[in-house]
Amino acid sequence: MLGRVLCMVLFVGAFPSPAEASQGHISVVLLGATGDLAKKYLWQGLFQLYMDQVSSGHSFTFHGAALAALEPGQRLMFDVLKKLSCPPDEAPDRCAVLKDQFLKLSQYHQLKTAENYTALSREIETLLRQEGLKEAGRIFYFSVPPFAYTEIARHINSSCRPPAGAWLRVVLEKPFGHDLQSAQQLAAELAGFFREEEMYRVDHYLGKQAVAHILPFRDQNRQFLDPIWNRHHVERVEVVLKETVDAKGRTSFYEQYGVIRDVLQNHLTEALMFLIMDLPANMSSAHEVVQHKLQAFQSLWGLERSSAVLGQYQAYDSQVQEELQEARGYVSTTPTFAGVLICSNSLRWEGVPFLLTSGKALDERVGYARVLFKNRAYCTQSGALRDAGHSQCKPKQIIFHFGHGALNTPAVLVSRNLFQPVMPKDSWKEAEARSDLHVFGQPLSDFYMYSPVKERDAYSVLISHIYHGRKDFFITTENLLASWAFWTPLLDSTSRQPPRLYPGGVENQHLLDFEMVSGGVAFTLAEPAELLNPSGQMPSDFRAIQSKFRQSPLVSAWAEDLISQLASDMEEAAVRSVARSGQFHLALSGGSSPVVLFQRLARHHYSFPWKHTHVWLVDERCVPLTDSESNFLGLHRHLLQHVRVPYFNIHPMPVHLNRRLCVEEDRGAELYAKDIVALVANASFDLVLLGMGTDGHTASLFPRAENGLEGAPTVVLTESPVKPHQRMSLSLPLINRARQVFVLVLGKGKHDITTLLSRVGHEPRKWPISGVSPSSGQLVWYVDYEALLG
Amino acid sequence: MLGRVLCMVLFVGAFPSPAEASQGHISVVLLGATGDLAKKYLWQGLFQLYMDQVSSGHSFTFHGAALAALEPGQRLMFDVLKKLSCPPDEAPDRCAVLKDQFLKLSQYHQLKTAENYTALSREIETLLRQEGLKEAGRIFYFSVPPFAYTEIARHINSSCRPPAGAWLRVVLEKPFGHDLQSAQQLAAELAGFFREEEMYRVDHYLGKQAVAHILPFRDQNRQFLDPIWNRHHVERVEVVLKETVDAKGRTSFYEQYGVIRDVLQNHLTEALMFLIMDLPANMSSAHEVVQHKLQAFQSLWGLERSSAVLGQYQAYDSQVQEELQEARGYVSTTPTFAGVLICSNSLRWEGVPFLLTSGKALDERVGYARVLFKNRAYCTQSGALRDAGHSQCKPKQIIFHFGHGALNTPAVLVSRNLFQPVMPKDSWKEAEARSDLHVFGQPLSDFYMYSPVKERDAYSVLISHIYHGRKDFFITTENLLASWAFWTPLLDSTSRQPPRLYPGGVENQHLLDFEMVSGGVAFTLAEPAELLNPSGQMPSDFRAIQSKFRQSPLVSAWAEDLISQLASDMEEAAVRSVARSGQFHLALSGGSSPVVLFQRLARHHYSFPWKHTHVWLVDERCVPLTDSESNFLGLHRHLLQHVRVPYFNIHPMPVHLNRRLCVEEDRGAELYAKDIVALVANASFDLVLLGMGTDGHTASLFPRAENGLEGAPTVVLTESPVKPHQRMSLSLPLINRARQVFVLVLGKGKHDITTLLSRVGHEPRKWPISGVSPSSGQLVWYVDYEALLG
Repeated sequence: MLGRVLCMVLFVGAFPSPAEASQGHISVVLLGATGDLAKKYLWQGLFQLYMDQVSSGHSFTFHGAALAALEPGQRLMFDVLKKLSCPPDEAPDRCAVLKDQFLKLSQYHQLKTAENYTALSREIETLLRQEGLKEAGRIFYFSVPPFAYTEIARHINSSCRPPAGAWLRVVLEKPFGHDLQSAQQLAAELAGFFREEEMYRVDHYLGKQAVAHILPFRDQNRQFLDPIWNRHHVERVEVVLKETVDAKGRTSFYEQYGVIRDVLQNHLTEALMFLIMDLPANMSSAHEVVQHKLQAFQSLWGLERSSAVLGQYQAYDSQVQEELQEARGYVSTTPTFAGVLICSNSLRWEGVPFLLTSGKALDERVGYARVLFKNRAYCTQSGALRDAGHSQCKPKQIIFHFGHGALNTPAVLVSRNLFQPVMPKDSWKEAEARSDLHVFGQPLSDFYMYSPVKERDAYSVLISHIYHGRKDFFITTENLLASWAFWTPLLDSTSRQPPRLYPGGVENQHLLDFEMVSGGVAFTLAEPAELLNPSGQMPSDFRAIQSKFRQSPLVSAWAEDLISQLASDMEEAAVRSVARSGQFHLALSGGSSPVVLFQRLARHHYSFPWKHTHVWLVDERCVPLTDSESNFLGLHRHLLQHVRVPYFNIHPMPVHLNRRLCVEEDRGAELYAKDIVALVANASFDLVLLGMGTDGHTASLFPRAENGLEGAPTVVLTESPVKPHQRMSLSLPLINRARQVFVLVLGKGKHDITTLLSRVGHEPRKWPISGVSPSSGQLVWYVDYEALLG
Repeated sequence: MLGRVLCMVLFVGAFPSPAEASQGHISVVLLGATGDLAKKYLWQGLFQLYMDQVSSGHSFTFHGAALAALEPGQRLMFDVLKKLSCPPDEAPDRCAVLKDQFLKLSQYHQLKTAENYTALSREIETLLRQEGLKEAGRIFYFSVPPFAYTEIARHINSSCRPPAGAWLRVVLEKPFGHDLQSAQQLAAELAGFFREEEMYRVDHYLGKQAVAHILPFRDQNRQFLDPIWNRHHVERVEVVLKETVDAKGRTSFYEQYGVIRDVLQNHLTEALMFLIMDLPANMSSAHEVVQHKLQAFQSLWGLERSSAVLGQYQAYDSQVQEELQEARGYVSTTPTFAGVLICSNSLRWEGVPFLLTSGKALDERVGYARVLFKNRAYCTQSGALRDAGHSQCKPKQIIFHFGHGALNTPAVLVSRNLFQPVMPKDSWKEAEARSDLHVFGQPLSDFYMYSPVKERDAYSVLISHIYHGRKDFFITTENLLASWAFWTPLLDSTSRQPPRLYPGGVENQHLLDFEMVSGGVAFTLAEPAELLNPSGQMPSDFRAIQSKFRQSPLVSAWAEDLISQLASDMEEAAVRSVARSGQFHLALSGGSSPVVLFQRLARHHYSFPWKHTHVWLVDERCVPLTDSESNFLGLHRHLLQHVRVPYFNIHPMPVHLNRRLCVEEDRGAELYAKDIVALVANASFDLVLLGMGTDGHTASLFPRAENGLEGAPTVVLTESPVKPHQRMSLSLPLINRARQVFVLVLGKGKHDITTLLSRVGHEPRKWPISGVSPSSGQLVWYVDYEALLG
C-alpha cells in the first residue's frame, strides 16, 4: 500500500502537461524487471529511450514487473535503476535531471495472478484519466523464461490490452522453441493471444550496428556491388562468432540448446540472410524485406549430417556433471562448437560456400561476417614490386565486424582494391589507419574502415526500434519458422553424434580447422587419440550391414548412410557401363523415397558420367509434366536441373500427348516402348531403381493389376488405388530384362511389408514387388534399419 | 677433294668393328650446321648423344651440311666442333678421347643441288659397305629457315632415303607456319615427302626438364591428384614465360610473328595441354598421349578478341623502323606481350581459368606452369597462431618451374599442405630449403621442392629422344594443326588491334596487370594518356552505327561488336519481359550466323534470366533432333547445354513424331501451334530472332512458298530449295505478332541481298524477309559492316 502511494506521489510532477504530450502516452511494462538481462541491458535501454524521446510529444511510464512481492521487488528494481549510467555523449546536467524523472516515472508491480494484470491495466487507465492523457500504446517486454510465455500472454490479452485506438507491442526474447515443432507450437499459442503485427521477437544481433548496417550498405553501394555480388565474383561468405568464455554456470540452459540453437539458428543465420538475400526495390518496406529473406531461405539446400562439424570443449562434461548433478560417467553430446557449410541453389549464389562458425572456449573473442571475393586478376609484375600499390592481386573482401577482436569496435571494412564505399556520414565515420594491426591476413591500411560515430548497445537500438514500430528489425513468425525448418534436420541428424573434444583456448591449435569435402565439411586433422571420447562407439558408428534378402544381396544401414551407399553404387554402375558401352541407361522411380537419393547424387557425385547417361522413367502419373504430382517434375527438381544430362538423353514418359492425358489411342505407352527398343540395346536397362509401397506395389504395378505383371516386356497403362489413378509404367518383364535392379525401401512405415516379403515367394499378383527377379541381371535390396528392424 | 680424303682418313679408326656395332650404323645429318642454333645447342647435343650412346651397339657418323662451299663450310664447322665442351659429370679423360673420336666421325657437306644429296647418300652407302656395317637409320635435322624446307625435303625423299630396313627421321624446327592455313599448306607439302612417323617436329619446351616431367608427375602422383585435379579443387592454371630481353636485333623475325606465334601457340600451349589433358591409361603409348592431347584441344572454348590483352614495349616501333628500314611514322601492331584467358568445356575443367602470359621487356626472366588450388578450408584458430604450422588455409599450389627466376633452376614445387609427391629418385632430388627465398607469395620452406639430379639442356634431351624414337616428345601434324586451329581466330581478330604500350622492365609497374571480366580479360588500369598510341583511332575503334533500314532501327558494326550488342539487347529484352510477365518467350532461328551469338549468350551473360525463359524454334529441318543438320542440335550445343533453361521450357519443333519425320497426318505443325497458343500469351512471342538468306528467305519461308507467307498465324510445313528439303517453320503472320523481332545479317555474302532489300517494298512472295513487319511490335535490324558495306 505504502509502495503504491509512494509511486503515485513520484509520478506527480514528472509528467508533461496534456498539451505537451500531444502524441499520447506510452506505458512500458518490463516483465522480468529484476533479471539479468534487465539489469544488464534493458533498463539502460529504456532510460536511453526516455532520454531520446522525452521531447517527442509522447509521455511515458515504465512498469517493472516480476513474481516477487511488491516490497522486495521494488527494492531490487530500484537498486538497478539507481545504477543507470549517463552515456558519454549526454550532457551530465541534463542526464541527471532526466534520470531523476525516469526514476519517478518507474514503478514496480508484482505480476503473478490474473488479478495483478487487471490491476495494472486499471492503474494505467486511472493514471491517464487523472493526468488527462490520451493513450498511445503499451509495450510489454518479456524478459522471462519461455515456459512462462503462454501464461503471461494470456493475461495480457485478456486483461491488459489498451483501449481501441492505442497499440499493443509485445517484445519476446529467445529461445523461441528448440526445433521446428516446438517453435510452431509456441507460435501457434502466441497467435491465440496476439496479432502478428503486435509481436516483436528480439534477435539482439539485429540491433548490433554492424549487422544492422548490412542491408543499408548493400543498398547504398548497389553501383559497386551489383556486378560482383554473385557466384562469379564471391569466393565464400563467412559468418563467425568466436567466444573465449565457456558455458560454465550456464550449463542448465546450454545442455538443452547447444551452440547451433544458441547462436547459429538465430544470430548467424540472420546476418547471413542480410548478406545473401536479394535486395527489395523498396528497402523501407519491412514486408518486402521479410519476403526477400524468406525467398533466400527457400533457395538454401537442406542441411545434412555432413554439412556440419561439431566440437565440445573438454571441460564441458565435468561442468555439466557438477552443475546438473549428473553421474560421474555422464557424457553429453551437446556441441559447444560448430562449423556449418550452407549452400544456395539460386542463380546468384550457386556454388558459393557459406560458412557459419561459432564456439565457446576458443582462442579469441570476435564476431564478423566476411565476404571474400575471387582473385580475378593476373599481376604481371613480380610479387616484390606488386605489394607496393593497391594491387588487384591482393585479397578483396568486405567485412562487417560485429565487435571485439583486434579492432574492438563495430566496423565495416572494404578492401581498398575493391571500391571506396558510400557510408552515411552522420552515423559512420572513417576510422584512422592503424598500420600495426593485421586483420584477415592484411594490414588494416589495405582497407577503407568505418566505425560508428556513436557506439550504441544493441538493446538500446532495438528498444528505439520497438518505440518506432520498425518491425524489420525483429523476427516475424514466418522468418522464425523458416529458420527452424532449415536447421531442424541438422539438429535431428546430429543429435546423437559425438562431438570432437577440444582442450579450449589457444591449445585448440588446428584441431577445429575444417575443410569442404564433397558437398559437406570435415575436420582437417584426424582426431588425436588422447582426446577421443572415452565412451567409444556411438549409435552413428554402425557400419552398413551386408547380407541377403529374398535370396538377393541386401544392404542395410540408417537411412542417410544407406542413401550414400546406394548413390556410390549407382555411380560405380554408371562408370562401368559407360566404360563398357559408352552409355548408361538408367530408369528411375518417382515418389518420395528417392528424393534424398536424387539430392545426394546431385550434390556429392561430381564425377557421375551424366553426359553419357540416359534417364528413363520407371513409371509416371497421368498428369502434365509440370504438375506437382508428376514424377518427372520431382526428378527434374531434385536431380535433373542440377546436373548436365543432355536434353536428348532425358526421356519423360509421354503421358501428355495431343494435349490430353494417357488416352489409349494416343499410344503413349507404345511410343515409349518403341523409344526404349530403339535406344536401349536389347531393351535391357543398365540400372532400374525401384521403390516399394506398403501394399507391395512397385513401379506403377499394383496388386491384382490387369496388365504389366507378365507377358511382353513393354510399357503399360495401369490403375492405381490412390489418386491420380491413371498411371504409365514399365512392365515387370521389361524391368526384369535389366542388368541391375536396385530396390530402395525406407522408413518404419515399410517395416510390415518388408517383414511379410521376407517370408513369401514369387507372387506378383498379390505383391508385384515379389515378381522383381531379373532374368540374367542382378537384384540388390537397399533397406534401411527402420524398414528392416521396425 | 682434299676435304673428302681427309674425312675418309679421319673415319678410319673411329669405328667399332662390325661385331661391336651390332645394332647397325646411324648417320646424323645436320642441315644448317654452321647456323646459330647449331652452334649454340645442336652440335653439343649431338656430342652428348655420342658420349651417351657410344657403347650402345650403334655406330655413328655426323654430317654437317650447309649451302657454303666445302672449304669455308668445313672451317666454320670445325671451329664450332673444337669448342664443344665436356659436361661436368663426365670424366675429363674419357671425354677428351670421345671428343677426338667425335671430331673424326664428323664431316662437312655442301648441300645445295640434287647432285649434292645424291652424293651424300652414296658416300654413306660406300662407307658402310667398306666398313662392313649394316645401316640402322638416318637422322636429318633441319636447322634452316622454313622457306627452305620443301626443297630440302624433296631432295631427301628422292635421293637420301636409307635402304629398306633402315629408318628415316627428319627433325623440323619451328616456325611451322604462321596460321592454320599456312601450317596446313606446309604440312601437306611435307606429307608429300615424309610419312608422319618419320617427322620429328621440335618444340624445345618439350625437352625442358620441368615441362617434360608434367605428365610423369601427374601419372606417378595419381593417388593424390585424382581427387583434386578438377574444377572443384583447382582455382586457376597459369602458364607463364616472362623475358627481360626485347626483340632488338630480331625484329625482322619478330615483326612477322609476335608473341602469340613465337611463344604461346607452341611452348605455353604444350605445357598447358600436359596439365589439363586426361591421362591415358598407357602413359608409354605416344599415340594415346597425342589422342588425349587432341581431345583436350577439342574441349577448349574458341578464343575471341576479348580473350586476350596485348601489349608492345615502347621502343619496339623505333627498333623496327631502324632494323627494317621502315619510315619514321611506321606503327607496328605486333604484340610483344600477351595475356590470354583460355577456358575448357570439359566436365573436369569447366569454369577454371587457364591464363597464358608471355612478354618481352618485362621485369624478370622466369618461366613456369602453376596450378593454384582453391582454399577449401576454414581455419578456426586466428591468423597469428595459424601460420606456425602447415595450415590448410595457406595457399596450395603445384609449380613446374621451367627455369630462371629466383630459383634459377628447373624445379617441381608442391605446397607442403597438399602432399609429399612421388618423384623418381634417379632424376629428381629434393632441393635444400632456402628460407630466404619467397616464391609465389610463400617462403620456399612451405614447399616440397625438387630439382633435376643432372641439369640437361633441352636440345640434348630432345636429340636423345630422336635417337630413341620417342615420338611423344615431338609435335605431330594433328597436334600442330589443332593448336593453329585454336590460335588462328584470335590472331585474326586482333591483327589490327593496337597493343597497349609499356615502357619496359620494372617501369611497367601495374600497366600489364589484367583481370578476368565477363568471359574475357582486360587490363586493370586505364591506359595512361602519355603512353597512348600517337596514331590515334584504329579500325577496331569504330562504334556501332545506329540508323534506319527499311524504316526500322538498324544497328551496324563489325561482326564481333554487333553480336555483343545484340546479345546485350536480348538480355535487356529478357529482363524487361520477366519483370513484366514473369516469363520470356524467345523464338530462335537455326543456321550458322546465330552460333556466335549463342556462344556469346552462354559465356558472357551470366545474369540472363534463363530460368524464366521459354526457348522456341523459329524453324527446323525435318531430321531427328540429334542429327547434325538439326537446328535444335546446334542450339543445344552452343547454348542450351551451357545454361539452365528448365526442361519444360525448351520447345523443340515436333518434326519427329511416331518415329517418322514431318508426316502431314502426325500433325506436328498443328501440335506446335497449339503449344504456342497454350503457353504464349496471345501467341505473341516476346522476341523472335531471325536470319536472312541470300535469296531473301527467313525462318524456313522461301521465295514463292505455298504457305506461311500470309493467312493465319500458325506453324507450317515448307519446302526448301536446298537439302534437307522438308522444313517446319513459324508463319510470317505468327512472327509478326511478336513484341520484338531482331534480324541478324552477317558477312559479305549477304551484301547483295541487303542492298537489294534496302530498295524494295513489301514483297514477301519474292523475298519473304520483306514481309517481316510486326503488327504492333518492334523490328530491329542487326547488320554487320560486311553485309552492309560489302
